[in-house]
Amino acid sequence: MEEKIGFIGLGTMGKPMAKNLLKAGYTLTVFNRSTFKAAELKELGAVVAESPKEVGSRSQVTILMVSDTPEVEEILTGKDGVLAGVHPGSVIIVMSTILPSASRRLAQVIKTYGCEMLDAPVLGSRRAAVNATLTIVVGGEKAVYERCYGIFQVLGRQVFYMGPQGMGLYTKLCNNLISGVVMQAVSEALLFGQKAGLDLQELIKVIIQGGDRTLTMEAKGPSLLARNFDTHFPLKHMYKDLWLISTAAGELGLALPVTTLVRELFGVAKVAGLGEKDFSGVIMIMEKLAGTRLKEG
Amino acid sequence: MEEKIGFIGLGTMGKPMAKNLLKAGYTLTVFNRSTFKAAELKELGAVVAESPKEVGSRSQVTILMVSDTPEVEEILTGKDGVLAGVHPGSVIIVMSTILPSASRRLAQVIKTYGCEMLDAPVLGSRRAAVNATLTIVVGGEKAVYERCYGIFQVLGRQVFYMGPQGMGLYTKLCNNLISGVVMQAVSEALLFGQKAGLDLQELIKVIIQGGDRTLTMEAKGPSLLARNFDTHFPLKHMYKDLWLISTAAGELGLALPVTTLVRELFGVAKVAGLGEKDFSGVIMIMEKLAGTRLKEG
Amino acid sequence: MEEKIGFIGLGTMGKPMAKNLLKAGYTLTVFNRSTFKAAELKELGAVVAESPKEVGSRSQVTILMVSDTPEVEEILTGKDGVLAGVHPGSVIIVMSTILPSASRRLAQVIKTYGCEMLDAPVLGSRRAAVNATLTIVVGGEKAVYERCYGIFQVLGRQVFYMGPQGMGLYTKLCNNLISGVVMQAVSEALLFGQKAGLDLQELIKVIIQGGDRTLTMEAKGPSLLARNFDTHFPLKHMYKDLWLISTAAGELGLALPVTTLVRELFGVAKVAGLGEKDFSGVIMIMEKLAGTRLKEG
Amino acid sequence: MEEKIGFIGLGTMGKPMAKNLLKAGYTLTVFNRSTFKAAELKELGAVVAESPKEVGSRSQVTILMVSDTPEVEEILTGKDGVLAGVHPGSVIIVMSTILPSASRRLAQVIKTYGCEMLDAPVLGSRRAAVNATLTIVVGGEKAVYERCYGIFQVLGRQVFYMGPQGMGLYTKLCNNLISGVVMQAVSEALLFGQKAGLDLQELIKVIIQGGDRTLTMEAKGPSLLARNFDTHFPLKHMYKDLWLISTAAGELGLALPVTTLVRELFGVAKVAGLGEKDFSGVIMIMEKLAGTRLKEG
Repeated sequence: MEEKIGFIGLGTMGKPMAKNLLKAGYTLTVFNRSTFKAAELKELGAVVAESPKEVGSRSQVTILMVSDTPEVEEILTGKDGVLAGVHPGSVIIVMSTILPSASRRLAQVIKTYGCEMLDAPVLGSRRAAVNATLTIVVGGEKAVYERCYGIFQVLGRQVFYMGPQGMGLYTKLCNNLISGVVMQAVSEALLFGQKAGLDLQELIKVIIQGGDRTLTMEAKGPSLLARNFDTHFPLKHMYKDLWLISTAAGELGLALPVTTLVRELFGVAKVAGLGEKDFSGVIMIMEKLAGTRLKEG
Repeated sequence: MEEKIGFIGLGTMGKPMAKNLLKAGYTLTVFNRSTFKAAELKELGAVVAESPKEVGSRSQVTILMVSDTPEVEEILTGKDGVLAGVHPGSVIIVMSTILPSASRRLAQVIKTYGCEMLDAPVLGSRRAAVNATLTIVVGGEKAVYERCYGIFQVLGRQVFYMGPQGMGLYTKLCNNLISGVVMQAVSEALLFGQKAGLDLQELIKVIIQGGDRTLTMEAKGPSLLARNFDTHFPLKHMYKDLWLISTAAGELGLALPVTTLVRELFGVAKVAGLGEKDFSGVIMIMEKLAGTRLKEG
Repeated sequence: MEEKIGFIGLGTMGKPMAKNLLKAGYTLTVFNRSTFKAAELKELGAVVAESPKEVGSRSQVTILMVSDTPEVEEILTGKDGVLAGVHPGSVIIVMSTILPSASRRLAQVIKTYGCEMLDAPVLGSRRAAVNATLTIVVGGEKAVYERCYGIFQVLGRQVFYMGPQGMGLYTKLCNNLISGVVMQAVSEALLFGQKAGLDLQELIKVIIQGGDRTLTMEAKGPSLLARNFDTHFPLKHMYKDLWLISTAAGELGLALPVTTLVRELFGVAKVAGLGEKDFSGVIMIMEKLAGTRLKEG
Repeated sequence: MEEKIGFIGLGTMGKPMAKNLLKAGYTLTVFNRSTFKAAELKELGAVVAESPKEVGSRSQVTILMVSDTPEVEEILTGKDGVLAGVHPGSVIIVMSTILPSASRRLAQVIKTYGCEMLDAPVLGSRRAAVNATLTIVVGGEKAVYERCYGIFQVLGRQVFYMGPQGMGLYTKLCNNLISGVVMQAVSEALLFGQKAGLDLQELIKVIIQGGDRTLTMEAKGPSLLARNFDTHFPLKHMYKDLWLISTAAGELGLALPVTTLVRELFGVAKVAGLGEKDFSGVIMIMEKLAGTRLKEG
């Protein structure tokens, strides 16, 4: 007998994830601030709730996939929030990327309602959400993780239990630290090659086949040459994640000199109006600084 | 009828490369400043010359694999240098990583002797030199490259022609820019994970299998946890390459903010006495700054 | 007829400031978490309150000089906080250095109690607090500023009205941005001179008398040579201010690459246990990295 | 009986300095690559030489005030260079800012001609050169310094003997390290104030009168608000000096993280075509990144 699921946040990532749960046969109650996105899921069999509170009251497991910490807090603890409706024994899974310390504070509030929380951010793009090939990294109590394991298996291809509350988030942030810095490294390397007059397609080939290959060079190298900045992961989200990393590291008493400098460069890019582009668009700032552009492929 | 080859510089990389040429049947004349390394090659059939000049006079193709720009210049243009003995029509292949602009100046000097030059630095560690699995990136005239192609095939698995004089070096520097910055990214990510209390073996697994994988994380992550800093690529060489990158970028009018900051961190590591360790040892500086060490695996 | 003043926070800066108000003849109610500091002021004629609430109820102008944003928030809005006791028409002056946006949020809360708020952080050390030679930079409504002008004149030598709510804080942060970065510049310059073998006393003299002099070099140069790290302004506070600057700049969509890097270096110093030293102690991190120490004067 | 002086390099700084020597009654032989600048000095009584060699042969003390290391080397050691004409016992004073290690190498060459060398770079702008209010920092043998002291007194207001060969240059570089970093600090502070909506004239006043004042803020703050980028010290020269600093620090095994990052920002500014502007023009890069401009005064 499977659990009734609530799903709040039907954005770029959330909508395909919710659909995958419906397809897998789960009973689903959804809520989204702008109601028209919910309509599509209604057609597929979801109940559309009037409020997060209603989602909480109808579900044994409520999933949040909204954008940032204040929104998560409001949806959980606000008037008509999930906690206003939730039954003891329920689980709340926060799949948004928020500050780990905020996640821990929320978990304690949730405990006072007799409920449990997992933090379970995802690695992967919208396409991975659609194809259910996400990687999901989970923090929280092991037993709660095991209770929800079936749900994670529907949403992603790989699921990792990383330890107590917050550990899923820290894992995600460690990964995105690398994404951000490597993206900048790729930008600097390609612009260096460009200024030197190298054939950039050949350069990318050498680095991928015979040198210090990275997923970022493989995935973004060719699209940069094609000047394709369609969003896989929006630059504004990378900037947000770099802020979370910097703040979380500060809380832990850790200096991250290079990551922090990279954060500032993504900040410049966001201010320059590139926030909705793919995060590889950070190269456009470097191009502006260098007074040149990558030659098109 | 194959060409007679000269080989100067029998260090960590040069000695196994010279051996591979002997095994492939080439007639080889070698020179090394400290003669005892040459002795080993004599037993395998090489002629040991008294000077670079003698190497030049005995060879149609002379390969240099010494450490830096002044050494290359002295071996070529000094008294008793290669150019003092060389026959017109010979080729000099500089496989050392030196400044591309210095390489171009040398090529012009070499031309006045009626000879040709290629810059052909390698990507890969000592093991790749031993196993002849290096990647070789070549700059110079296409016809000269083709003349020497058979030699490169003996030394490495992949050979890329990158364009005119200097382009092999620029390619190598673009690649090592990425190596240096990604190494620092991996260091910051692992220390962040460490401070957060993550199981680092699990973290590495997640990033490699489901996240933003890099060759650096795959190759160095496990050895960092094992505190294995045996040299694959010495930190002092990475520092030298980051200096070359920074200088070459300056010549091209290009600012590289993150690469340059990473260079300073490798500089700190070198000053701290880590120059002979593997370049992944840069993490020990971050550990010192953070007041913590990665948990052993 | 002068206003009754409340004063909360009798630390390094607050105690001498409160004393100066007493000396100037003001009726003063004080509160401090650790009560023994309040005792000294009681002897001088202050009323010692049991709670912030009591301070609020006894005062027309309440001054806060506590360390950070959460503490300010709790003292104002917590149970038994100032706002629980305050009379409409009162003024609350926050002299702590907190986030300008937090200050604006607090001002709005305070308005709902029929009261006014000023942000009025100070420039200057403990000695300036004792000697009433502080510089005070004020944000808030002009009329409220004028009402409190006499109080500021007792506490400092120079008072600047900088504009609406938050502007005092922004001014302070702009100034401390310079303090932090210039301190790092002085550190790098002195270590460079040291490595070069210069007589550092002579170097400092040249820079102050004939070069690009800064107050920081004048004030800290000689004490660094004497290895005197007695606190004028604790390193942990500089680190906090650099965090506020970085966060406030992020809110404004501004990247500050150099300031942010300096923040990381102060972060390293704090983690290394230097938080209670004078902020010039950041040079000890640079010394550690350089493997050398400034020669004593 | 005063010494005959030679002066090579009649640029922005050199011409007024040569004039001051003439006014002081010295017998002067001058040389400049573009001869029309020399004409003006001929009218004032100088002998205009055909070559650096002629300057050397006519002078007991030869002063060089040309722009960079290669030019200094060529003028001294080239065919028709100073050393080709010089009499033993002469002194060569290099007042250009060059690499200290290059200066030491030149001094050794000069010694083989039986001559002596001083490095004597200046602190100060063109106006200080005109008014003979330069600060001169000298490295070399004490006796040689004393022999030339009268000349320095004509050219500047303050003269400091800093120690053996190279020490004048290191002193200058230490000072300009501070100039570059503080300029960037001022830029970041003013842009932060601008974004916050502060009255920048008031902000500058507060910082100078009551905060962490620097000569840079005093000298450049008002001109920045007036968008006056007329050259006092060209940005391209600041960039050159930051390169010298970075290279010299590297030679000494010293990492300078913040200075190096600032160098990259000046590099960006130079590439953006700001090299001929005053070095305070680096703020235009920050403005471009921030998408705003300082409000005019």
